Amino acid sequence: MIPAEMNRQQLNDFKSEVQKQYEDYKALGLSLNMARGKPGTEQLALSAPMLDCLKASDFTAAAADYFNYGALEGIKEAKELFAPMLGISPENVIVFGNSSLNIMYDTVARAMSFGVSADTEPWKDCGKLKWLCPVPGYDRHFAITELFGFEMINIPMDENGPDMDMIERLVKDDPSIKGMWCVPMYANPTGITYSDETVKRLAALEPAAKDFRIFWDNAYCIHHLTDTPDKLLNIYDEMKKNGKEDMVYMFASTSKVTFPGSGVAILGASKANLDHIKKSMTIQTIGHDKLNMLRHVKFFDGKFENIVEHMKKHRAVLEPRFKVVSDILTQELGGTGLGSWVDPNGGYFVSFDSLPGCAKRIVSLCKEAGVTLTGAGATYPYGKDPEDKNIRIAPTYPSLEELTKAMEIFVCAVKLACAEKLLADTESASSIA
Amino acid sequence: MIPAEMNRQQLNDFKSEVQKQYEDYKALGLSLNMARGKPGTEQLALSAPMLDCLKASDFTAAAADYFNYGALEGIKEAKELFAPMLGISPENVIVFGNSSLNIMYDTVARAMSFGVSADTEPWKDCGKLKWLCPVPGYDRHFAITELFGFEMINIPMDENGPDMDMIERLVKDDPSIKGMWCVPMYANPTGITYSDETVKRLAALEPAAKDFRIFWDNAYCIHHLTDTPDKLLNIYDEMKKNGKEDMVYMFASTSKVTFPGSGVAILGASKANLDHIKKSMTIQTIGHDKLNMLRHVKFFDGKFENIVEHMKKHRAVLEPRFKVVSDILTQELGGTGLGSWVDPNGGYFVSFDSLPGCAKRIVSLCKEAGVTLTGAGATYPYGKDPEDKNIRIAPTYPSLEELTKAMEIFVCAVKLACAEKLLADTESASSIA
Repeated sequence: MIPAEMNRQQLNDFKSEVQKQYEDYKALGLSLNMARGKPGTEQLALSAPMLDCLKASDFTAAAADYFNYGALEGIKEAKELFAPMLGISPENVIVFGNSSLNIMYDTVARAMSFGVSADTEPWKDCGKLKWLCPVPGYDRHFAITELFGFEMINIPMDENGPDMDMIERLVKDDPSIKGMWCVPMYANPTGITYSDETVKRLAALEPAAKDFRIFWDNAYCIHHLTDTPDKLLNIYDEMKKNGKEDMVYMFASTSKVTFPGSGVAILGASKANLDHIKKSMTIQTIGHDKLNMLRHVKFFDGKFENIVEHMKKHRAVLEPRFKVVSDILTQELGGTGLGSWVDPNGGYFVSFDSLPGCAKRIVSLCKEAGVTLTGAGATYPYGKDPEDKNIRIAPTYPSLEELTKAMEIFVCAVKLACAEKLLADTESASSIA
Repeated sequence: MIPAEMNRQQLNDFKSEVQKQYEDYKALGLSLNMARGKPGTEQLALSAPMLDCLKASDFTAAAADYFNYGALEGIKEAKELFAPMLGISPENVIVFGNSSLNIMYDTVARAMSFGVSADTEPWKDCGKLKWLCPVPGYDRHFAITELFGFEMINIPMDENGPDMDMIERLVKDDPSIKGMWCVPMYANPTGITYSDETVKRLAALEPAAKDFRIFWDNAYCIHHLTDTPDKLLNIYDEMKKNGKEDMVYMFASTSKVTFPGSGVAILGASKANLDHIKKSMTIQTIGHDKLNMLRHVKFFDGKFENIVEHMKKHRAVLEPRFKVVSDILTQELGGTGLGSWVDPNGGYFVSFDSLPGCAKRIVSLCKEAGVTLTGAGATYPYGKDPEDKNIRIAPTYPSLEELTKAMEIFVCAVKLACAEKLLADTESASSIA
């Protein structure tokens, strides 16, 4: 019998049972972390050999330019190596430092101060500002647009991506909507990949704001977990067909390919967008770390296919972790009606939806039992999940053993929170009756 | 006889002679560059061994945190190593990426959007904005404040630093003056170091703007060229005595210590300033390249005195270059009244003042003869040298041989431009008569 169909007595029994289980877990005094999409130590080890790719003996007078100032856009070899991650030409790429988040922040900040082109206003002078946020989504995206004062509008996601009817309707008439966050492949946290139709409709948007920009954060573009990876249509190509290629900024990084703190990040954009960006970028910096770019180029022997091969090693580490999550969820919650989730084909997360009104309680129960999850609500703008049901599970960082224990505690917390909720619902129903 | 005392005929003879010399140089078809403060190849080679400081074998599970996300403020060891560059405590330091210019730009950009503290307005909302610019100064500083729309006010420099009477008078009554650029040690380009009195008066400023900030770019703090280096008073200590330590942001980097493109840069500031900065910084990035910080820490064995030792090797490379500049200037222009300069005790530049109205012509003559100099006017806000006389000589990048040739051409161009100028003055004087 599934809990939603239990009577009061049965629910009480169910609750007592999971409560006891929960207290046993709590007594273990564990400290486990599933909060962030952090690679685990095994994954980091995969790129350790990159450290040997640049040695003192590689310094020669002929190579001195790599060691000196210059090359605002990054070194040519790195542009060539990484352009395929975004599916664009190397001349449409700028290679930055270690953080694509930093590029995104700077891209918003730049648009605030100087607009997105010579013939548009700085966003700071545009009055009310709004931003489209597919939900659930990435908390660090939302933090940027919140900081700069945008009113963020939730756009529901389904298995094809964000609700395109809603987006088309909203942007058509409202020039205060300046942009939209997208994680188009293996989305954070839902794991879904935008359908071809979604990409085509995004590429054909007719926003009232001439300075509307899609922030296409392709963070997981090569982060597959199966033999049948998702495929994402190339939005830049689609936009070019429509003469709209200025409407997108594309981002990617090697943070989850080589080292999270010491990777390189890239921006892909149209010539017009890059020209505008470079006008202030050349004042902001003389360029980013070219030796780290060179280290990456050497590690992958300048070939994108070697990056793809390297990602298979990551998959080998990650696949068992995602299987643990899937197995425990299926075994313990499958058919119970207490939650739903999707096993992703790639990326870093499993997005879990509990019964409405239970997410905060689940996260709090887990916390008490020593399991740190991403805060409930974090996957929504302003940290406010309107139904209080979404929880992002990040299985990459803990060891397999820790993860197993953490997931056991998680499903126990889900059952307990749901039992409490259903009981409370029964009570309020009977008091109304 | 010095040219200024020559009659028309003597000037014509002088001009013909240097004109002939100049044509001979031009015929050589050289291509030499003294435009930027770029370390030369010999200097880069000094830090090549740093590349061997981090190897694949240094990756261990215990060290994994260096390889992962995190540590927004930089690693502890790097904060400790670099804090003495600015003469402050490690807890007052944030270690950034490869560019102090980038920190300075971001610090201005942040103040524009979010103010300098919780209780001050964003600068963008403060109406008219002004900035104090000691001149001659650093073109990349001026470019930042120009980009953000500040009205830049020239503050004359002498051998003690900027004109403090003028600064005190200006900031006292004008709340639109929000900040000031300073290169307090071996200033770019004049090479002078601020006197103790200057530092004390800066540390005691009473600006009308509560959000006035001194941008203390200590780019050359350990870049000595003699056995009797200049000494700079610690402005942070002076400010603390006055309870004014929030009034300064301090910057330094290893761009001219290890590698210009792959060094690390630091910001030093009061706790209140750092706390405010971190509020938006934590949204901008997850942190900077910790492996490159670690590489630096290992290269210098965590000891500031080893950095100081390392700088002696730079000095050994640079001292002969500055001697060439000094010798040729003295030999060819000493006592001629055609120009003045100061031999600096450190830093990267020799600042040359020609007869007024001649700098552009000198730079252009050099260019025609294959010697690229920093553009005339670059050392002033908006690229406008009101007397058209200052030229920044950057002797570090060319080889000794190239530098010698470039300086010979430079002094020839100075003589030719001055002869032209003096002749034109004679003509206009006689036509007035």
